[in-house]
Amino acid sequence: MSPREPLRPVLYDDGRDLVRLLDQRKLPGEESWLELSAADAVADAIKTLAVRGAPAIGVAAAYGVAVEARRGAGPAQLRRVAAMLEKARPTAVNLAWAVRRISARLEAGPDALLAEAHAIRDEDEAACRKMGALGAPLLARGATVLTHCNAGALATAGYGTALGVVRAAHEAGNPVRVLAGETRPFFQGARLTAWELHRDGIPVTVLTDGMAGWLMQRGEIQCVVVGADRIARNGDVANKIGTYGLAVLAAYHRLPFYVAAPWSTVDLETATGADIPIEERPSDEVVLIGTQRIAPQGVLARYPAFDVTPAALVTALITERGLVRPVGAEALAALSG
Amino acid sequence: MSPREPLRPVLYDDGRDLVRLLDQRKLPGEESWLELSAADAVADAIKTLAVRGAPAIGVAAAYGVAVEARRGAGPAQLRRVAAMLEKARPTAVNLAWAVRRISARLEAGPDALLAEAHAIRDEDEAACRKMGALGAPLLARGATVLTHCNAGALATAGYGTALGVVRAAHEAGNPVRVLAGETRPFFQGARLTAWELHRDGIPVTVLTDGMAGWLMQRGEIQCVVVGADRIARNGDVANKIGTYGLAVLAAYHRLPFYVAAPWSTVDLETATGADIPIEERPSDEVVLIGTQRIAPQGVLARYPAFDVTPAALVTALITERGLVRPVGAEALAALSG
Repeated sequence: MSPREPLRPVLYDDGRDLVRLLDQRKLPGEESWLELSAADAVADAIKTLAVRGAPAIGVAAAYGVAVEARRGAGPAQLRRVAAMLEKARPTAVNLAWAVRRISARLEAGPDALLAEAHAIRDEDEAACRKMGALGAPLLARGATVLTHCNAGALATAGYGTALGVVRAAHEAGNPVRVLAGETRPFFQGARLTAWELHRDGIPVTVLTDGMAGWLMQRGEIQCVVVGADRIARNGDVANKIGTYGLAVLAAYHRLPFYVAAPWSTVDLETATGADIPIEERPSDEVVLIGTQRIAPQGVLARYPAFDVTPAALVTALITERGLVRPVGAEALAALSG
Repeated sequence: MSPREPLRPVLYDDGRDLVRLLDQRKLPGEESWLELSAADAVADAIKTLAVRGAPAIGVAAAYGVAVEARRGAGPAQLRRVAAMLEKARPTAVNLAWAVRRISARLEAGPDALLAEAHAIRDEDEAACRKMGALGAPLLARGATVLTHCNAGALATAGYGTALGVVRAAHEAGNPVRVLAGETRPFFQGARLTAWELHRDGIPVTVLTDGMAGWLMQRGEIQCVVVGADRIARNGDVANKIGTYGLAVLAAYHRLPFYVAAPWSTVDLETATGADIPIEERPSDEVVLIGTQRIAPQGVLARYPAFDVTPAALVTALITERGLVRPVGAEALAALSG
């Protein structure tokens, strides 16, 4: 595969004042971009998972405020817009973090707001590259890395958190391989992780979520690296549903379990994982696949979209401020200064 | 829901000499029956999962030999037919067991062969009802029972193994509820377990395979009950991929993990789980859902169809000969007489 442009799924067109989002619902079949001129369209894109991934939805929301400012909204209206965007999804704290950061500049005028949104985007990509540099040495030479959901370029401003670590190892000449858990119900692993790694020439194989334990027992997995939607003050990690089960399986098989996330994912105002709100999504998102209904009419499915992995099951947190190991309140407080 | 006829997915029409199979690929959307007049069509139905479940494919294969006999095949031809049927799938030992049992009667003539096949069917359903009676007292009142794949009426001659235990508890007035793991990639849980329990008025909710750990952590699951495709002499259990991970999660959360299977699933000729052949199925069965491709072109998926749970993780085996607890070679040998 030939070298390609770095993948950046959330952009802003300064000339036309449009938020540009790679529509992740259509991948891997189709690469199409949404061009949005209003914050409510951005909120809708976040709710319907056209853009997803904790850092990416933070960047998208910042651009959602900026596009309204550039199109003439004043501070009072922007405050309403910001509040609306912040509520688009409850679990990922990066969304609230980005909205609050840009909201501190609401009086500064449209150009300053857009500059702040661009800074949020640029800093997120830089943080991913730093996490990659810090995390890559954790991967043994030729390791097979299990990941879950998509914590890649598509989930961030670019480069990725968990997949940034994989990319950095690959770029440093480590022939790592990735097993991408398909991640039901939305198939972020099969659709998105497989797509972006294959695009960059990094070997990737898909597995169903139920296969991880067996492949660990067979010695086919050397470590697990995932992203995060929120990290509590004590180091508990909320991430895509299924993550907790993988953490238990990794501990049982004595495999390292790493979480890569930018500092904007750390929420020092949330004491423990028990305090993190877990989004419940509709049953139909589980039992309908396209137009195909996999369960009988009248039977519902559960869909907690995230779960919480206790800090004790996390071998290390990989952040742009440094590695956190062992994971806990003390080590996080030390980096929070 | 009104009382319904017991569900029997593998039947033989003595008048027309046809093997009748409820086509499980089309459930839950459509209830259609295959009517097969030749053993190779039966083998094809087994390979393509029109009929699945270890006991059910054993019964189907026995009828496959019988239908050839009743349509005029002699012992030499029947021996070839039997060998062909036995190879249709490698992991479930009930298939080989049933074919070998009926093969001992190849010289006895078509009527005796058909009678033997009917006996295999009838005994399997009776074994399921016995397992139900023995297993039901293991379920606490009002328990939420997690199951995986379909070990129900559809997987057997009727009534089910794991779901037979649930049915017996329900019939005894225990208001149990079932969480059905959807069981990727073939969705046996969402499609089949949900369908047959809903049909019988037993409360059932679907979850994706990755949700089990989180629901255990939240105290929403009281025990796990699954079926088996082969049980080795030492008590190791081969079952649908994903079972092993659930067993580890159950042990971690100190929840009982039960395996219900007829004695025909116990393979005393196989020493341990490491000796059980694990069927690998094609990548496309994972990455294609109907006509929708969930992974990019050029990316493959793993598909080991089964995994092996070590005996030490199984709280008890529920067989028609009695409960086996603790699970191990000694207890199995004691029942094998």
